[in-house]
Amino acid sequence: MKPLRIAIIGYGKIARDQHVPAIQANARFALAATVSSKPEPHPGIPSFGTHREMLAAMHDLDAVAICTPPSVRYDIGRDCLLAGKHVLLEKPPAATLGEVEELARVAAARDATLFTTWHAQHAAAVADAARLLAGQKIAAMKIAWREDVRKWHPGQQWIWEPGGFGVFDPGINALSIASHIVPGALFVRDAELLYPENRQTPIAARLNLASPIASGAIEVAFDWRHQAGEMWRIDIRTADGLELRLSEGGAKLTLDGDPVDASGSGEYQSIYNHFVDLIDERRSHVDIEPLRLAAEAFLLGRRTIVEPFVDRVQDV
Amino acid sequence: MKPLRIAIIGYGKIARDQHVPAIQANARFALAATVSSKPEPHPGIPSFGTHREMLAAMHDLDAVAICTPPSVRYDIGRDCLLAGKHVLLEKPPAATLGEVEELARVAAARDATLFTTWHAQHAAAVADAARLLAGQKIAAMKIAWREDVRKWHPGQQWIWEPGGFGVFDPGINALSIASHIVPGALFVRDAELLYPENRQTPIAARLNLASPIASGAIEVAFDWRHQAGEMWRIDIRTADGLELRLSEGGAKLTLDGDPVDASGSGEYQSIYNHFVDLIDERRSHVDIEPLRLAAEAFLLGRRTIVEPFVDRVQDV
Repeated sequence: MKPLRIAIIGYGKIARDQHVPAIQANARFALAATVSSKPEPHPGIPSFGTHREMLAAMHDLDAVAICTPPSVRYDIGRDCLLAGKHVLLEKPPAATLGEVEELARVAAARDATLFTTWHAQHAAAVADAARLLAGQKIAAMKIAWREDVRKWHPGQQWIWEPGGFGVFDPGINALSIASHIVPGALFVRDAELLYPENRQTPIAARLNLASPIASGAIEVAFDWRHQAGEMWRIDIRTADGLELRLSEGGAKLTLDGDPVDASGSGEYQSIYNHFVDLIDERRSHVDIEPLRLAAEAFLLGRRTIVEPFVDRVQDV
Repeated sequence: MKPLRIAIIGYGKIARDQHVPAIQANARFALAATVSSKPEPHPGIPSFGTHREMLAAMHDLDAVAICTPPSVRYDIGRDCLLAGKHVLLEKPPAATLGEVEELARVAAARDATLFTTWHAQHAAAVADAARLLAGQKIAAMKIAWREDVRKWHPGQQWIWEPGGFGVFDPGINALSIASHIVPGALFVRDAELLYPENRQTPIAARLNLASPIASGAIEVAFDWRHQAGEMWRIDIRTADGLELRLSEGGAKLTLDGDPVDASGSGEYQSIYNHFVDLIDERRSHVDIEPLRLAAEAFLLGRRTIVEPFVDRVQDV
């Protein structure tokens, strides 16, 4: 079978670290081009300065993976869908819910596949947790997502700009897992957002989520100020007394303290396998729930101002 | 035909000024009870301290109109739907998009009617504007919603608390008209939110909206700091050169400068007529678009701190 010719648009850290290896390891894809402001970012593959130049020059392209910052994904995704390309979107899929819904309409009208990936949903043990929780009610649930922003976002200024999500950039991964594994609706009840006084997005957040299938609040803590003690963990106790712990961002699972063998193949391998299935079946997979929860936190959140954040790379 | 017995839950300014007269003027309804923290707020009608007391005491109730602040509407609405009552929600229908979606699921499961009212959509000339714009493309559009917060929200502290919407409380009326009359998707491109330094919600906001059927930005200005020059106006120029002006919050319309006779019956009369139709046809009417646009503005908005707001009634 002829491989699907795919281009990567936005050739930054996530593209290099995750998308290129996953595409190269998948026999159904051939990496055909990149779009980047840097000249020839990937050796031996045609490179273009803009997605429009690429669409004009390459008529045999089947699909694109959009890995730019979220604010420009809608315009790029729309152009690519209108050109008949299948579109994979890094998370979060766009700047707003409305943009994602409009992309879904365009994809449907063009019979193209749109895939809003949430890579954390594809972590190795997440599907196992979802299976264990199916049909259960939740007695208690805590989400703790703590990391060092300087380590994971070195010099990335867009995360601090309006629409850059701040600590919700990693936190939305936790929300994407939660909305995937909790077998009922989730919504934000209240939130506190901690903004450094020199920044436009929060460096930490505490949320209380509610669900019709949870008897109490679901407590969420995102914090970007942890150089030691990084943690990406979800603890759940069901009404039947099962104790689940998803750790390492969904890669590991324990049930009542005992390790559960993870059935998944890992985030980006799973994402590209699913993209192939969607394209073969001419379907889209559009999930706006994590973005909805983030938007609700910003809509409802109490703003608290905390000490300025100084990025060692850019600001000193 | 036996009238529908309806209770008003949350007996504040909007209930007294709008809901009671509209219910009393509609032969299909009978005002059967109120829920309020005040004793006997409406003479001659049973009054209850909580909606649960009312549901327990009154088994012949058909419907409720929920006019509380938005933060408690979900819990009340859910209880009423689960008790089999038809539910009308003042705007905004709940605190979050997820709450509205969950209420819609409960209503569907109980075969009850849920009606998320946006009263400005029922202003006399809004349907006329929608008819004139059907199938049109938009060349330019400006929304200006300017009023004096002290006049319209005397002593209402909840509007300044997290989740209280601030200037989006009136502004969402404009968004509800815009999403109703623009014949295409709308979403927020960027926003600036002006927060008084002593408040948790914005006193003014500037938004740029985008739409696939608009060639340029749709400029939105909300401002609560206008004692003189109050204005609730939407100006639209179509690609075909039609000039529409909706003013007085949708009550008046001009086309190319000439007045158009408004076909509507006025906001709350129209709302209760539509509620009867929905109940008769066992349908729901759930519109989350205005709330989505507000949430997007909070998600994306640049925060600017402005001078403190001192409410004459409460703070001095």
